[in-house]
Amino acid sequence: MNEIARGTIERLIAVVGPQGAITDPDDMAPYLVEWRDKWRGKSALVLRPSSTAEVAEIVRICAETGTAIVPQGGNTGLVGGSIPFEGGDEIVLSLGRMNRVRAVDPLNDTITVEAGCVLADVQAAADEAGRLFPMRIASEGTCQIGGNLSTNAGGTAVLRYGNMRDLVLGLEVVLPDGRVWNGLRGLRKDNTGYDLKHLFIGAEGTLGVITAAVLKLYPRPADRQVAFAAIPNPEAAVELLSLAKDVSGGQVTGFEILPRLGLELVMKSLPDARDPFGDLHPWYVLIEMSSGEGGGALREAMETALARGYEKELVADATIAESEAQAQQLWALREGLSESQKLAGGSIKHDVSIPVPKMPAFIARADRALEEVIPGFRSLAFGHIGDGNVHYNPLQPEGADAEAYLARWQEVADVVHGIVHEMGGSISAEHGLGRLKRDEVRRYKSEVELELMASIKRMLDPDNIMNPGKVISP
Amino acid sequence: MNEIARGTIERLIAVVGPQGAITDPDDMAPYLVEWRDKWRGKSALVLRPSSTAEVAEIVRICAETGTAIVPQGGNTGLVGGSIPFEGGDEIVLSLGRMNRVRAVDPLNDTITVEAGCVLADVQAAADEAGRLFPMRIASEGTCQIGGNLSTNAGGTAVLRYGNMRDLVLGLEVVLPDGRVWNGLRGLRKDNTGYDLKHLFIGAEGTLGVITAAVLKLYPRPADRQVAFAAIPNPEAAVELLSLAKDVSGGQVTGFEILPRLGLELVMKSLPDARDPFGDLHPWYVLIEMSSGEGGGALREAMETALARGYEKELVADATIAESEAQAQQLWALREGLSESQKLAGGSIKHDVSIPVPKMPAFIARADRALEEVIPGFRSLAFGHIGDGNVHYNPLQPEGADAEAYLARWQEVADVVHGIVHEMGGSISAEHGLGRLKRDEVRRYKSEVELELMASIKRMLDPDNIMNPGKVISP
Repeated sequence: MNEIARGTIERLIAVVGPQGAITDPDDMAPYLVEWRDKWRGKSALVLRPSSTAEVAEIVRICAETGTAIVPQGGNTGLVGGSIPFEGGDEIVLSLGRMNRVRAVDPLNDTITVEAGCVLADVQAAADEAGRLFPMRIASEGTCQIGGNLSTNAGGTAVLRYGNMRDLVLGLEVVLPDGRVWNGLRGLRKDNTGYDLKHLFIGAEGTLGVITAAVLKLYPRPADRQVAFAAIPNPEAAVELLSLAKDVSGGQVTGFEILPRLGLELVMKSLPDARDPFGDLHPWYVLIEMSSGEGGGALREAMETALARGYEKELVADATIAESEAQAQQLWALREGLSESQKLAGGSIKHDVSIPVPKMPAFIARADRALEEVIPGFRSLAFGHIGDGNVHYNPLQPEGADAEAYLARWQEVADVVHGIVHEMGGSISAEHGLGRLKRDEVRRYKSEVELELMASIKRMLDPDNIMNPGKVISP
Repeated sequence: MNEIARGTIERLIAVVGPQGAITDPDDMAPYLVEWRDKWRGKSALVLRPSSTAEVAEIVRICAETGTAIVPQGGNTGLVGGSIPFEGGDEIVLSLGRMNRVRAVDPLNDTITVEAGCVLADVQAAADEAGRLFPMRIASEGTCQIGGNLSTNAGGTAVLRYGNMRDLVLGLEVVLPDGRVWNGLRGLRKDNTGYDLKHLFIGAEGTLGVITAAVLKLYPRPADRQVAFAAIPNPEAAVELLSLAKDVSGGQVTGFEILPRLGLELVMKSLPDARDPFGDLHPWYVLIEMSSGEGGGALREAMETALARGYEKELVADATIAESEAQAQQLWALREGLSESQKLAGGSIKHDVSIPVPKMPAFIARADRALEEVIPGFRSLAFGHIGDGNVHYNPLQPEGADAEAYLARWQEVADVVHGIVHEMGGSISAEHGLGRLKRDEVRRYKSEVELELMASIKRMLDPDNIMNPGKVISP
């Protein structure tokens, strides 16, 4: 592509006014880099519109002039989906100023929010109305609803409430030609034709710009029980999950696994983190149950699940949080892990899903296969095993050179993703494709599926101006 | 269109063999009529394939010869979506022989079934594996999974488990050119591109033929509480719903409303049905809560909800089922209503949804507006008010001529749907568009939305052979 014409830039700035446009390189910098510094892009212009009408006008001008648009929310993504390429011929469309809660309707259990609302603010607005918005992810203080929608965010409450996709009743979207589709319906049931909203959810900004959404609210749980259990192996986690679901009748809201190495890394990096147990154990699970009913039944369910797990030798030791503070401490042992990995040198990250019962076999197979490739690597598989989703992030061998290790990223990914594919899994469970996995995914999807995706892209965005080069290969 | 060529018919029969083809007019008859006898179609051929490969071959031949296909499941639809038109130039593709449960995986909480499986058989297969498949609709003994998927079925457990769309992890679909898309993934999380399955769910067979699906299973509830309450008006139902959700922490699985007239009709038609109360009341709600926890907490929640409702004058009288048999008797008062309406003469049916809190205002407005049009008509609004979905089925005035009343169907529908649209609702909450509402919906959808739908249809089925004339106007 060519540089954006001066006249186009001026027309775009005129739409949002000076307070909505950034052209100074220093001010633009934070919009052009992925937070882990994996990608740095270039752009002549960052636009920060304040209304759907402004977004529509911007997209119209871009459609007319063939200017590429990179929509951006809180810029907390992990696959380069919200960063422009290096050519400088794309504009960044940052939705952060569109951060109004348009309506809260507790009797309808809905909240209508603009794309730029920070997730934590939506959680707070729901809470204020006596309701729960259940999406819960590590970046919730920064990430925005539009990004959550465009990437179909996952997180630690999927087991009970589903992914972002499952929390949406309606959308407002600016299409690639600048028209606005107002699908902001707050209905639980509507069978009047094709479901359009699911096309845009998870499309990573390649089919249009989501500007607002009607989201589902839930009753706030009256009771929450959090336990941390030492287990002999991942197989025990799968059985314990099933047992916990049965005993509690589906009240399990979180079920996370981590290995000993993970716990050790967290303890090194978080000053307050302590090993809950006196002995060393190879694996751990964090179990969260929550319920609308108070009165001790949930505590009983957790105790029963752990006691039966102990009888069946699925559990070696366990502790149940006695207070909200303790519950948070136990969660910190899991949540601290994303950051703590840095202490161990290079780690090669995979965000994969597998049918739950096959997860232990996957971890074992991947470990064996990688040992062949990189002897002495350290296995680190952790995360949402309750959803069949782990972050399989093998660490460099102790004392090895991080850069040399990371240079073998694709070689390692090929091994891991090959096994994932063979076992019926997904090479991107929750992070999306962006530019990181755009080409790689082609090896694992059928021709039919790739062609369907390309047809959808061509249908909605024939000139390829919406986040080009992401998700779909050019 | 023209009659189907003899040669094409012979080729199609050769695919399935004689046991899979019906050409005798008497044998074809049940496939050509809607069960309420609202539509009767014509066809030269009913095909009953036994495998996905056979479906694919049939569709390939139809694509090559420009032959239109009407996919059909249990043929329990209400909008004419599964009945061919009167021209005789379409074939019926009945999926009933594809009724294998391909896999049950209780540890993954999934079941993989073919499109022709009867819903009740899927429920039973889940139950046998110690799990719940929660879809529950009146036609469950006859309707098939493929039809449930293609119409995004609703029913009486949507409040807790969602519509059919929400119960699906993966699909297998024969596309309009005969290619097979194998999207039979059993993953809770998969963010590797556009979501294709939601395109086909609810598309009423106009975008392809769903041949199999991976469905979600849930823990079987350990406890179920069913209550029947007399209430002063629909406003009380909305408040009581919110109260019941809060008190039980979201354990409400069913919340159905019916007016006095509805109860009377049921008592007339079902010999065993009795009024649970000594006094007459204008409205009733049936409340069902279910929970994985046993031990009395749910009973307590139900009692608390009703007691608080009584204090707030939302509840005039109430009874809680003391046994499973009693629970079924209470449900029969609600479920008998669909059939009982026939006793009252002509009824004009509307399957509408409205945001829950606006439902009482909708019923009042529609009642007032219809009284202007047909003085003396009898209001009958009942159903899934917990989902914001009622069947608003005004009955003919007492003693009036049924045929003359039904002749005014569209006039009445225009009034009712006009109000629904103004209040942000849907003119088809769960039944779909089929041919009944195909044209009418155009008045209520935006140009943008209609164009998006038409683009999707053109993209996937450019020759318009998949259930032509349904959902999308020709």
